[in-house]
Amino acid sequence: IDHQAAAAAQARQDKLTKPRGSLGRLEEMAIRLAGMQGTDAPTPDPVRILQFVSDHGVAVEGVSCFPREVTLQMLHNIARGGAAVSVMAEAIDAVMEIFDLGIATDPGPVANVRSERLGPGTGNIAREPAMTEDQLARALDIGRTAVERALDEDARLLICGEMGIGNTTPATALACALLDLEPSILTGPGTGLDRQGVSRKAQVVAAALNLHARPEHGPVELLRRLGGFDIAASTGAFIRAAQLGLPILVDGFIISAAALVATRINPGVRDWMLFSHGSAEPGHRHMMEALDADPYLHLRLRLGEATGGATLVPLLRMACVVHRKMATFDEAGVSEA
Amino acid sequence: IDHQAAAAAQARQDKLTKPRGSLGRLEEMAIRLAGMQGTDAPTPDPVRILQFVSDHGVAVEGVSCFPREVTLQMLHNIARGGAAVSVMAEAIDAVMEIFDLGIATDPGPVANVRSERLGPGTGNIAREPAMTEDQLARALDIGRTAVERALDEDARLLICGEMGIGNTTPATALACALLDLEPSILTGPGTGLDRQGVSRKAQVVAAALNLHARPEHGPVELLRRLGGFDIAASTGAFIRAAQLGLPILVDGFIISAAALVATRINPGVRDWMLFSHGSAEPGHRHMMEALDADPYLHLRLRLGEATGGATLVPLLRMACVVHRKMATFDEAGVSEA
Repeated sequence: IDHQAAAAAQARQDKLTKPRGSLGRLEEMAIRLAGMQGTDAPTPDPVRILQFVSDHGVAVEGVSCFPREVTLQMLHNIARGGAAVSVMAEAIDAVMEIFDLGIATDPGPVANVRSERLGPGTGNIAREPAMTEDQLARALDIGRTAVERALDEDARLLICGEMGIGNTTPATALACALLDLEPSILTGPGTGLDRQGVSRKAQVVAAALNLHARPEHGPVELLRRLGGFDIAASTGAFIRAAQLGLPILVDGFIISAAALVATRINPGVRDWMLFSHGSAEPGHRHMMEALDADPYLHLRLRLGEATGGATLVPLLRMACVVHRKMATFDEAGVSEA
Repeated sequence: IDHQAAAAAQARQDKLTKPRGSLGRLEEMAIRLAGMQGTDAPTPDPVRILQFVSDHGVAVEGVSCFPREVTLQMLHNIARGGAAVSVMAEAIDAVMEIFDLGIATDPGPVANVRSERLGPGTGNIAREPAMTEDQLARALDIGRTAVERALDEDARLLICGEMGIGNTTPATALACALLDLEPSILTGPGTGLDRQGVSRKAQVVAAALNLHARPEHGPVELLRRLGGFDIAASTGAFIRAAQLGLPILVDGFIISAAALVATRINPGVRDWMLFSHGSAEPGHRHMMEALDADPYLHLRLRLGEATGGATLVPLLRMACVVHRKMATFDEAGVSEA
């Protein structure tokens, strides 16, 4: 982080023709991006979305409202432009890379999709580790490499998204293990479970924790045992983004679990993160607290797919253009307070 | 409001390829606009901003951090493109009409400014009514006429903004009178008063209430005695917008006072309002409660000038494009829950 650039951005904000601080968190967005990008003219553009689609073995435990084949159907929908994130990515003019990291059924070649399959979904964490060591290493590497590619194409802001039936369950289990909180506190309805469904899901999370959460396991081993291909690839992407100085816009519940893992592996990654929104999934609040994060938006989103991140992009742009283009008191001949 | 169009929009949202309700308040934005516009394809565009600039007699009581001449200086700054709202209006491609409703010194002709001067500022509400009956009638009419002009030019969304040194004081006084709350509860720092300044300002508000707030005075008379040219013109604009079916996006503290007055004059106006943001000015929360409003954004803005309204516009657009362009479960061949 370029603290001089951040201080210069703060000084500029204080000279713009408005009461000091009166643009609130819009000022904060511009100042934080200025510090990350080491520039007087921060910008989120070009925005890069990495969309990680994969299946989760734990789906067989009945932890989602939707049948498992929806992961594959949604891959096609995202790729063809019909999903929420597809519409948003087009609307905000973001480049989106879509990954098949391991859907249960191999779809073969799909237009607009990178096939980087690590297997037919992860293991069922209630009974076995999610990934082998090799799968974990490859997932982290896919995220890392994707960030390097994004930077080669001049990306200035990274958003990771995910789609995969059942994936709030591994995200919840990982968060429980990392935050040392009970499943009953962090488990929520995901795509829309009723009270009974949430209770069953919490039992599945508890079974996974019983099997895998040991004090001797660090964040990487917990990620391997409790995570998903999507969470692992995002973790790799976040760590690499921070190493290379690319600002990260953290999306919802599942991606926040990856943000937690990444900061446990390397606490310095936190400095490179902006937090788009507070998810309607109740456990998200605890993740945000653990990350010392105060998300910008509270719109009751609970979709994932990077849609929360994409929703904030227009406000980041607004914050940056105001920062660059507003007149100072001197330039405008306006008296100061 | 076209309840059939709103119900159809809700039904469409429920068929889009996402868990039901998972886009939270983005769904709500599209559905509410659909009901107001009576269409399947709601849109905020074209956006019209009415920017009401005027002076307030009560400024002589030392209720602001900034000297009074800043109103005039900021009129020029807004008109020349240097103010926050100027940059935002350009960024969101909104048409902005800027009004001189009565700055202390007549600036003469200014490019991009409509001169509709009602006097050299309002009366000092701590000592006299803000407006004569004639001034109030003309202010209301300026707002009404501006809305008619906006509709002639096909506006689909109205935002009123204001600039005028001292104008949180009349807004606070009006809110106190309408909500029957003590000045100590509603008075805040405005552009940045310290604790002592806020206390002095609360005394000025109390003096104004002593002089003007009588049980027999309805909202129109309270507006005349305690308001400002900006608040009155916005009130006229809101009432006319509702009559003509134009959606209203309510900005910050001062404009919310106008929204309060408008709904007291005609409760039906409330149905046509969307609320952009919760202001950092502490009394704003009470106004929102009285309006049964749950603002979309909480970004600690406290600038006025329609900047809060302008900040929400990109999210309204996002909500509308998602509503129109996402695929349904049937179209995408995705299984439902």
